[in-house]
Amino acid sequence: MLKVPEHQVAGRQAIDGKLGPLIDNLGHFYKPLQDDDERGTRELTFYHSFSSNTRIPHHIRRFFPVFHGTQLLKASDGSGLCPHLVLQDITSDHLNPSILDIKIGSRTWYLEASNDYIQNCFHKDKTTTTVSLGFRICGLQIYNESGFWKPGRKLVRNFTADDVRSVLRKFVSSNVGPEPDCCFADSVYGGCDGILERLLELKTWFEDQTMYHFRSCSLLFDKESFLRGKTPFAEVKLIDFAHVVDGNGVIDHNFLGGLCSFIKFVSQVLADSKGSTMEDKF
Amino acid sequence: MLKVPEHQVAGRQAIDGKLGPLIDNLGHFYKPLQDDDERGTRELTFYHSFSSNTRIPHHIRRFFPVFHGTQLLKASDGSGLCPHLVLQDITSDHLNPSILDIKIGSRTWYLEASNDYIQNCFHKDKTTTTVSLGFRICGLQIYNESGFWKPGRKLVRNFTADDVRSVLRKFVSSNVGPEPDCCFADSVYGGCDGILERLLELKTWFEDQTMYHFRSCSLLFDKESFLRGKTPFAEVKLIDFAHVVDGNGVIDHNFLGGLCSFIKFVSQVLADSKGSTMEDKF
Repeated sequence: MLKVPEHQVAGRQAIDGKLGPLIDNLGHFYKPLQDDDERGTRELTFYHSFSSNTRIPHHIRRFFPVFHGTQLLKASDGSGLCPHLVLQDITSDHLNPSILDIKIGSRTWYLEASNDYIQNCFHKDKTTTTVSLGFRICGLQIYNESGFWKPGRKLVRNFTADDVRSVLRKFVSSNVGPEPDCCFADSVYGGCDGILERLLELKTWFEDQTMYHFRSCSLLFDKESFLRGKTPFAEVKLIDFAHVVDGNGVIDHNFLGGLCSFIKFVSQVLADSKGSTMEDKF
Repeated sequence: MLKVPEHQVAGRQAIDGKLGPLIDNLGHFYKPLQDDDERGTRELTFYHSFSSNTRIPHHIRRFFPVFHGTQLLKASDGSGLCPHLVLQDITSDHLNPSILDIKIGSRTWYLEASNDYIQNCFHKDKTTTTVSLGFRICGLQIYNESGFWKPGRKLVRNFTADDVRSVLRKFVSSNVGPEPDCCFADSVYGGCDGILERLLELKTWFEDQTMYHFRSCSLLFDKESFLRGKTPFAEVKLIDFAHVVDGNGVIDHNFLGGLCSFIKFVSQVLADSKGSTMEDKF
């Protein structure tokens, strides 16, 4: 039995007769591959290349969803059978996941793309935080005692640097009001199993790897499984590889720069929360 | 007695009745500030801010030319008295300097600039190595036994990734032919006083500093004074601050990404030269 993912925070959704991803109860995420869609082909090519690439260190492979090949399935838009990528469903088993989807890089276009695509991305990059911060929040949901906070797409698109700082605080708080308490900052962002440490691992790899350039790719964070002790470390995954291009022997400086900027934002939330804890104590 | 700098490899030159920088025999570099030129004002503002900024670590200050204020001087284009920035002349005392001028960053424009400026930069960034490599060579001269090799602007503008690799090899070779020997790679790029170590120092600062964003700014390398033992470490300077904007609490992810890419290029030349030395031995 396939169903529409409940906790999808960004991207095309399989609702109102549209084409979008589906999930099953076994932890699989099915992403449709349209025949005439260059993106689908590029994403499939990436998964094939990455899966068989022996130069990917084991600790880096953990950042990517497991790839189980492709499968013909009835498309969610009623158009009949359509090939789907079969991937690991990252939020499977999570009762009330708090999720952040962050598109990394100060540029989402690439030289190999069409002029229309470049112009479209160029405009979006300038009018979101992509150019200014080197990343943008694409979607989020944060769960706390009063339920989910899931701001609409338009609101998310208009986020400023201060909104981003606020979201990063709320993500590790027990409240999502104007003064988030950041009570989980230390356990979720900090420590040797926290998100910051995972991001630094990824950064080290990006300073060296010259195989892939990840355009318009997102980092997905979930705090629930880590906080509940289901996983030994904070979950950080890279998703969306429809715009991965050959690195041609050059590091992905666009992703790396954006990642470093994001790391700085997370570090600041962590440092501020430590500062305020100290103030509380004295 | 003021004269036209002999070893300028990029930027506006004070020749053919044009406005450009001048030097004296005391190690000063005079850069004209035009009244109607926003760039000049921005560069002066940067030098004032940077000079008095107590948060700049001492080892980072060494990367910047010393600023001696401004002075009214006869402009090189014959237009009469014009204020000039008075800066340290980096190549003063160097008999035959080998110089590389590298504009760092995969984007030279900034949101605060005019639309025309953005479009102009956007086009240049795409058609040079700026977008693909995260930096571009703006000018160079390399001295060896047969004299200076100083390719023309048009040639430099059309450099590919392979040309960049070749230039980085020639810069540390005794020959500039098709097979550079890289005999100075280890002493100029490597070691604890070499260029690579200096670049890593700069990288560490850029991972943290959120005060300035350096758009369209260049790194200038000179190997002569270091090889001749005149300076205890390789000379790496940042120049051209006409497009520095406020960091607004965000790291300069654009400069940092490009710097990391450049570091990787230099590391590869160093690693390859070590590999070939090993091959020669066995």
